[in-house]
Amino acid sequence: MDIIQACIKALEELKAKKPLVHNITNYVTVNDCANIIAAIGGSPIMADELLEMEDMVSIASCLVINMGTLNERTVASMLKAGKKANDLGIPVVFDPVGAGAVPYRNETAVKLMQEIKFAVIRGNMSEIKFLSGLSVRTKGVDSVADETGGVEAAKSFAAKMKCVAAVTGKTDIITDGDRVCLIDNGHPILTAVSGTGCMTSALVGTFCGAVEDYFVAAAAGVLAMGLSGELAQKTLKEDEGVGTFRMRLFDKIYHLKGETIEKKGRMKIV
Amino acid sequence: MDIIQACIKALEELKAKKPLVHNITNYVTVNDCANIIAAIGGSPIMADELLEMEDMVSIASCLVINMGTLNERTVASMLKAGKKANDLGIPVVFDPVGAGAVPYRNETAVKLMQEIKFAVIRGNMSEIKFLSGLSVRTKGVDSVADETGGVEAAKSFAAKMKCVAAVTGKTDIITDGDRVCLIDNGHPILTAVSGTGCMTSALVGTFCGAVEDYFVAAAAGVLAMGLSGELAQKTLKEDEGVGTFRMRLFDKIYHLKGETIEKKGRMKIV
Amino acid sequence: MDIIQACIKALEELKAKKPLVHNITNYVTVNDCANIIAAIGGSPIMADELLEMEDMVSIASCLVINMGTLNERTVASMLKAGKKANDLGIPVVFDPVGAGAVPYRNETAVKLMQEIKFAVIRGNMSEIKFLSGLSVRTKGVDSVADETGGVEAAKSFAAKMKCVAAVTGKTDIITDGDRVCLIDNGHPILTAVSGTGCMTSALVGTFCGAVEDYFVAAAAGVLAMGLSGELAQKTLKEDEGVGTFRMRLFDKIYHLKGETIEKKGRMKIV
Repeated sequence: MDIIQACIKALEELKAKKPLVHNITNYVTVNDCANIIAAIGGSPIMADELLEMEDMVSIASCLVINMGTLNERTVASMLKAGKKANDLGIPVVFDPVGAGAVPYRNETAVKLMQEIKFAVIRGNMSEIKFLSGLSVRTKGVDSVADETGGVEAAKSFAAKMKCVAAVTGKTDIITDGDRVCLIDNGHPILTAVSGTGCMTSALVGTFCGAVEDYFVAAAAGVLAMGLSGELAQKTLKEDEGVGTFRMRLFDKIYHLKGETIEKKGRMKIV
Repeated sequence: MDIIQACIKALEELKAKKPLVHNITNYVTVNDCANIIAAIGGSPIMADELLEMEDMVSIASCLVINMGTLNERTVASMLKAGKKANDLGIPVVFDPVGAGAVPYRNETAVKLMQEIKFAVIRGNMSEIKFLSGLSVRTKGVDSVADETGGVEAAKSFAAKMKCVAAVTGKTDIITDGDRVCLIDNGHPILTAVSGTGCMTSALVGTFCGAVEDYFVAAAAGVLAMGLSGELAQKTLKEDEGVGTFRMRLFDKIYHLKGETIEKKGRMKIV
Repeated sequence: MDIIQACIKALEELKAKKPLVHNITNYVTVNDCANIIAAIGGSPIMADELLEMEDMVSIASCLVINMGTLNERTVASMLKAGKKANDLGIPVVFDPVGAGAVPYRNETAVKLMQEIKFAVIRGNMSEIKFLSGLSVRTKGVDSVADETGGVEAAKSFAAKMKCVAAVTGKTDIITDGDRVCLIDNGHPILTAVSGTGCMTSALVGTFCGAVEDYFVAAAAGVLAMGLSGELAQKTLKEDEGVGTFRMRLFDKIYHLKGETIEKKGRMKIV
């Protein structure tokens, strides 16, 4: 498949459909996630009260579950919304923030993976390797895993979980266990901003709400963030830093066009 | 009345009084709401613990209740704070985010309206029509209602609720059931940013903490957002988008002056 | 001691160590706090679920407890994490947001101070005077205390609490009860932005995670915010305000260098 053309088409479909994306997420980056979904052309819903979970997810085109500031109350909501989404055939994206860091997160991630069928799981290599049952050093909620063997680890994880794995890092790896897409856009400054991982998952969710091939949706979401981050970084003057970068990142997502993906997207199926 | 002059006077009074505004709001846009209140010259308090609700609202000049990410815990706090504010004669502004979308929100909105006397209810046409008992299609938490019959619907809602209704949309409608003010400032890009509705309610609350005529306060708050949004949008260069827009919106609110309202405010009593 | 040189060295150590900073904080400014920690070179963890508190704080280099939107659930987490940090010798920074405003906050602040040994307590003069048992008028969560007798009040508070007191205001006062550092950087526009106090505490926590002398850490954190705020304000054009200022503040923190501290830091030991 021509993954560049597939992503361009996915962006067109997203803009046409304006999918409603229901997020059960953390209170750190929730505003960024809502704004990035709106910026690319989706319609965000952030809601986590158990009593409205089934009704809310029922009107959405995708559900994104992000474990960033999980607590007992919201984990119950994640389980309820995830199962309902599965019943209705609504895709569910999972961002296992901090998996591998502490037992409560590990147990919660495992429980969510046992009870919910995910369309896409997006994390860094530490998180994905932990979820795969491989040992990995974790530094807080950030990744310190090297990327050796990353493609194989991602492929076997995706195959085992019967989902798309989107592993973001220096080179992003997207795989459904069969197809593998590598993406080389991005810039290190993205790691100096809180929430770029969460926002990537939110974008993946927005694409999942618009197209049926979740491998393409995941690739398009990850590409959108990496490419926009790269373009935003290029605009920075010497005395500008993460503050200006964050602002421009939203500008670039808002203005993202197929022709930009065509010219500047560095992605390939391997 | 000369609504433009009344709004200019309200802004002066707000700057002089620096009202304390207590907000029980959602975790998506809470930072935006605090910053917009501070930017225009008020003093924000964001607090939702039941055990401090009565004491906190007692030191405030206005209470804003926003249903954005309601949960059972915070709904109890909304009820407690709202009743205390009523007892003390402190105005209460209600933002019924997502009313009409799911039963839990609908029931909560109805309960809040039964137990609390609101000074102003600010919503989009979907929300206000739902609260009026009219049928309306709702797409998630955003409005898809057309504006036909909007003025009549808003007037009868305000009269029934004995409050000011502030219905924001392409043309904003402010009414206390008797007087009607239409505002034509604003720009469509405001709908591409998460939280502009919540921020408008926060501004309305800040004005309600400063002036006694809540019809004027609501008009001034809605005008401040629309006019500042319009001015912020005008500064955008071709490659700038929602990121830059959001930043400039705060700049424009911060610098908003009576003379700008006089020159550029497009509002009238009908 | 040469406090300027000590702060420069602290910044170098922070950049080298990239300390993990665990924050139990409010949902208003949590994103700002995470981003300011990342901007200066630390690694933020925001987490407040009781079931993961002991494990999470155990992997951190510092714990920051911020009372901004406290509730019964998070207060329990603060107590558990604080005690564990004490057991492990991990420094704990306390930001008693709104102490003096309402009884529940006062009682909670007292309880936290009774059960947890703090390395640094950072607040405004209202909060510190309240915690010292002195009477002070409080306007919501902002300070209205005059600064008369501030140094003496801060010194005796620090001596009584056996911690570093960092009292921010027009002139910032840092003291461990013995040494006193006064800082004259900053700009009034910092008070027109929500969360600059919280961010200062987050920066203090990041320095506490990097250096062992918490008096120096507190001075360095407070200086970083004041100096960066001052530099950010200087860049503003006439029509730019709090929106642009906030963005530039992050840029300035991100680019903060020892030579800037050397040239522009206005701090002295008295």
